[in-house]
Amino acid sequence: MRYRKRLEIVADILGAVGDGAKKTKIMYFANLSYKLLEKYLNKTVDAGLVSFDNGHYEVTEKGQVFLERFSNFSSRYSRLERELEAASFEREVLERMCELVVSERNDSRV
Amino acid sequence: MRYRKRLEIVADILGAVGDGAKKTKIMYFANLSYKLLEKYLNKTVDAGLVSFDNGHYEVTEKGQVFLERFSNFSSRYSRLERELEAASFEREVLERMCELVVSERNDSRV
Repeated sequence: MRYRKRLEIVADILGAVGDGAKKTKIMYFANLSYKLLEKYLNKTVDAGLVSFDNGHYEVTEKGQVFLERFSNFSSRYSRLERELEAASFEREVLERMCELVVSERNDSRV
Repeated sequence: MRYRKRLEIVADILGAVGDGAKKTKIMYFANLSYKLLEKYLNKTVDAGLVSFDNGHYEVTEKGQVFLERFSNFSSRYSRLERELEAASFEREVLERMCELVVSERNDSRV
């Protein structure tokens, strides 16, 4: 599994909280160890992205805004990564065009 | 002056050669030292981007293709760099949304 970045973990937690959930469900759907869940779930509460009341978590309005912005950011970033890869391929083509042309051996000379 | 990359130097030389030129003109328009010009001009000739005949340089068909591809690549790359900068700003906004919300001090309690 590839390493998830901080923002992705937060977004996964918010996605798992959804319309409301308890800790076990969040841990399961966000696919996190208990230790990481504890760390990040508390962070989302402290940041006001998730509200906590009597064992029940809910995504706040700020959390919804975060999720929407993150989703936009994430797809935009993936597109940029693909475009950069294509550009890097094009750079290689150009680099190759600058390389010495090795003339084909003219066997008719033999 | 910012550092010019290899491909840019080649493109600048090809631009300076234009419809045909002698070494002094190329050096002047490509804004290169004599040493760098020697190195890169020979490269462009060896790569078949520029032809050389009796002190006179000309951009070959391959050179024209290179120039066009490089120009496309260059503007595409600049756009990607700007978009990446914007994405990195958006990432910062998202990061800040995950930070601890410091509640405003409620002076009415005093």
